Amino acid sequence: MLRSHTCGELKIEDVNKEVTLSGWVQKVRDKGGLIWIDLRDRYGITQLLIEEGRSDNSVVEAARKLGREFVIKASGKVIERESKNPNILTGSIEIDLTGIEILNASLTPPFTIEDNTDGGEELRMKYRYLDLRRQPLRKNLELRNRLSIETRKYLDGQKFFEIETPYLIKSTPEGARDFVVPSRMNEGQFYALPQSPQTFKQLLMVAGYDRYYQLVKCFRDEDLRADRQPEFTQIDCEMAFVEQDDILSTFEGMVKYLFKTVKGIDCAELPRMDYADAMKYYGSDKPDIRFGMKFVELNDVAKNKGFQIFDDAELVVGIVVEGCADYTRKQLDKLTDFVRKPQIGAKGMIYVKCLSAEQAGNGDGSFKSSVDKFFDQQALKEWADKMRAKSGDLILVLSGETEKVRKQLSELRLEMGNQLELRKSGVFAPLWVVDFPLLEWDEDSGRYHAMHHPFTSPKPEDIDMLDTKPGEVRANAYDLVINGVEIGGGSIRIHDRDLQKLMLKHLGFTDKEAQDQFGFLLNAFEYGAPPHGGIALGFDRLAALFGGQDSIRDFIAFPKNNSGRDIMIDSPSVIADEQLDELKLKVVK
Amino acid sequence: MLRSHTCGELKIEDVNKEVTLSGWVQKVRDKGGLIWIDLRDRYGITQLLIEEGRSDNSVVEAARKLGREFVIKASGKVIERESKNPNILTGSIEIDLTGIEILNASLTPPFTIEDNTDGGEELRMKYRYLDLRRQPLRKNLELRNRLSIETRKYLDGQKFFEIETPYLIKSTPEGARDFVVPSRMNEGQFYALPQSPQTFKQLLMVAGYDRYYQLVKCFRDEDLRADRQPEFTQIDCEMAFVEQDDILSTFEGMVKYLFKTVKGIDCAELPRMDYADAMKYYGSDKPDIRFGMKFVELNDVAKNKGFQIFDDAELVVGIVVEGCADYTRKQLDKLTDFVRKPQIGAKGMIYVKCLSAEQAGNGDGSFKSSVDKFFDQQALKEWADKMRAKSGDLILVLSGETEKVRKQLSELRLEMGNQLELRKSGVFAPLWVVDFPLLEWDEDSGRYHAMHHPFTSPKPEDIDMLDTKPGEVRANAYDLVINGVEIGGGSIRIHDRDLQKLMLKHLGFTDKEAQDQFGFLLNAFEYGAPPHGGIALGFDRLAALFGGQDSIRDFIAFPKNNSGRDIMIDSPSVIADEQLDELKLKVVK
Repeated sequence: MLRSHTCGELKIEDVNKEVTLSGWVQKVRDKGGLIWIDLRDRYGITQLLIEEGRSDNSVVEAARKLGREFVIKASGKVIERESKNPNILTGSIEIDLTGIEILNASLTPPFTIEDNTDGGEELRMKYRYLDLRRQPLRKNLELRNRLSIETRKYLDGQKFFEIETPYLIKSTPEGARDFVVPSRMNEGQFYALPQSPQTFKQLLMVAGYDRYYQLVKCFRDEDLRADRQPEFTQIDCEMAFVEQDDILSTFEGMVKYLFKTVKGIDCAELPRMDYADAMKYYGSDKPDIRFGMKFVELNDVAKNKGFQIFDDAELVVGIVVEGCADYTRKQLDKLTDFVRKPQIGAKGMIYVKCLSAEQAGNGDGSFKSSVDKFFDQQALKEWADKMRAKSGDLILVLSGETEKVRKQLSELRLEMGNQLELRKSGVFAPLWVVDFPLLEWDEDSGRYHAMHHPFTSPKPEDIDMLDTKPGEVRANAYDLVINGVEIGGGSIRIHDRDLQKLMLKHLGFTDKEAQDQFGFLLNAFEYGAPPHGGIALGFDRLAALFGGQDSIRDFIAFPKNNSGRDIMIDSPSVIADEQLDELKLKVVK
Repeated sequence: MLRSHTCGELKIEDVNKEVTLSGWVQKVRDKGGLIWIDLRDRYGITQLLIEEGRSDNSVVEAARKLGREFVIKASGKVIERESKNPNILTGSIEIDLTGIEILNASLTPPFTIEDNTDGGEELRMKYRYLDLRRQPLRKNLELRNRLSIETRKYLDGQKFFEIETPYLIKSTPEGARDFVVPSRMNEGQFYALPQSPQTFKQLLMVAGYDRYYQLVKCFRDEDLRADRQPEFTQIDCEMAFVEQDDILSTFEGMVKYLFKTVKGIDCAELPRMDYADAMKYYGSDKPDIRFGMKFVELNDVAKNKGFQIFDDAELVVGIVVEGCADYTRKQLDKLTDFVRKPQIGAKGMIYVKCLSAEQAGNGDGSFKSSVDKFFDQQALKEWADKMRAKSGDLILVLSGETEKVRKQLSELRLEMGNQLELRKSGVFAPLWVVDFPLLEWDEDSGRYHAMHHPFTSPKPEDIDMLDTKPGEVRANAYDLVINGVEIGGGSIRIHDRDLQKLMLKHLGFTDKEAQDQFGFLLNAFEYGAPPHGGIALGFDRLAALFGGQDSIRDFIAFPKNNSGRDIMIDSPSVIADEQLDELKLKVVK
């Protein structure tokens, strides 16, 4: 027996018990006559005490050989501590040691195993098994485990079946790039790893399974942006005989359940926002609604007043930053620099300070703006009234082409949210964004692409615009957004073969291509496909959000770096020529 | 709203409710004035009633257009049935229809959607989404879902964390053949899909996670025998600071919990059988102990009595088949034919009938054997006494080289178990087989291979035989066997770098090969690896066993055929030249 207890469970009630613990040496403090060892395992830290003279000599000697991260088995009696530590679970007791056995020695780790380590990113990735010993990572993976347990509990309670779909499937050119897997038994042919189990879950609905879910790995061979992983995990769900509202309320229930059980937070009803409104009022299809600063469009009060830049703009639009009329010239210049950054791309920024009587003391008037030359106090008051700006507030305005200026102002809004610390971690503001466009124009290929995917159902009332105004057709598609992050998305699917064929035609598939790639799904639709729809949530992202962090990497046990490499195991790697021969493949450099 | 209730929930208490159901038309019976429709969904079947004259004309007309597997939405009032059907959940009621809406039509399915379908294997694989509508398959997947839920519940209760390990890992030549995945971002390099998360779960133990599990897909590119799948699911587990007994008792607990919660069966304590005993008494490392017929070795009573075949044999060994002394010549000849089949390979079979007084009526004596020429009544009585055969029993004896004859007799034993219906489905006899050999000799490569895997710990007391008698070194390795099927296996792992290097050397790895392939694990062992061990259970197999079936295929939603093909989606398939170019690959035929 290697332990009678873990390092996280002994309490004052256990005093006088003879116990055996096993774990890692976190720290040894040798104060001459007294030696303390902090022994660590997943469950906590327990203090071990050795007293020269009183403790057995062999124990003293063994203790003096220990280094950081040695693995030991320690036996002794639980005693009450003289100076208690209320910050740890076992802080009232220590173990008066009678035996130490070194189970394994350890080299000195290349970085410290502490909450704030001295190890750099690259080094910690290489020694991931050591980095994973640190408490912050352990807590992340524990949270992830808890989230998966509770997700399954909720969906099981809602009569969903978890059904595993295959990983070795078929490559389709639509969407992102597939990872492929050469088949040895079928020469020159390849499987593909799933980008999502989309078609399989739809087939399960055709098969009558009614409610399906799966926590499932998905794969995309994309050029990795920061914080993207080639393999990622989805909570993948599908329901039959439902309309959009049924799905939203089922998964709103899940979101509330997870916040309650995992974070102890009561969530109010989730707001539902049209895609069009999200773009109009937040300039984003994933608005962070933890704070206000909704966009106000100013065309009617700002255009045709002789200011050329506004007059030439398609849209003049601004936000009110509460209580910031006292921003200095320097602060305002920094904001102008921010919106001018190439990745944001605005030409400039207009501000209006709505001064309080005190601030405006010198009699210059209540409004001080960067466009005083073109707009008098009355004109600026009109702006302020329209924007419901109060005295003491700051108005920031951008102008230009509608789509671009909305994106720019969205960035500025988020920046102001950050500066004013309105995007608080620990505060969660989930919402549904609904009524997404069905199609989006792709400049590169010069054709429309499915915004969600080719199986998404158009709104019935918009179908007749497919030929005339395809860009305006709305879909029965929805996203779950929390704190400005798209956590998941889904749609009601097409369940009619003819409509599906029509959609594929609009997406540029020939009949033959459609049949080659999706024939099995189109065929399935001939045999009694029920109305159905679903959703997929990014599980890595959800875990990071619940953990209050932006990066998903530390919520994945063994992530890959930005080149798609696992630097701990040094993969990918070259394979043996015999393996290539068996697969009838040759590498062509 | 597409339904107010499912097709499985309306009961006599619901009479007079106005309801809406949606589902598939299982059957339409049109008896002139009265039309009954059986409407089916995942939850059950509800009978719909239409009466010409009384029901709305549009409803009658719509009903007459319905075919099998049409998807409809049906509204009406719950009424009490005249002739109740106690066999179905909703058998007391029917729905007096006021409205039918056809949600989707259906072509006539290529086979019947009934418990016993008329469809052949190939056809049902192609239309898997229709086959999956049949109740037996639905029940299989429901059972599988229940098993996964309960497995997680048990392990969560035992403080295991489910931690996802990567799917894109590194190819290693040891063991079975890997599926590989070319990396586009790392030219000429490949990932491999995991055959198991073995090294990662060991690293999680080094990282201090203490108790890990995962229900995880694994991949092996093997030539597919019947009922093997290239991708399969494992319940994969690992524990730190444990000895073999800790693991056996934890997973014995899981087995009992699953039998209790999923099947309602109370399991007794699992017997533990040495590998050596399993081979000696059952000729198999996965004995089916639902029935007896333990082997009895007969060398001392059968050899050196002048019967050349026995005298030349290394082992003479037999089983007692209770109450079968009345077997006819024909029956016995068939058994001889059975053991002579090439896949079994015995030269012949000896029998001894232990006749009752009545059977032996003619005074020929109590024993009638196929070797009467060589063994008199007294000699045969010695056999019978040694084997504890009673009068009325049949003794079957094989002889030859020890290993071979044990395998042959094992097949004969199982065949007798089948013939006598002793291998009852619904009866479960789990056991642990322990103390497996560490190494097994491989004729092809002329060297020893790891019987379990290269990370398995030898028994400490056997380590010094590694050089002298490697074949006799026992491992801390164990299998979970139920009803003659190996459900899972595991071992205590090596956690010492030097011992691991020694093992790899014995397995024929050079130092460089060992470092190239397992360097990360060997390095990890330098930094405080705890004693650890684990187990992996075949989840597909477990589900099939619980479902009382031999084949795993119908416990997998979308299985592949024996050529590794998914014939529904027609995969694997050729991929576009552009895809190959991007991967810098060429197919060489």
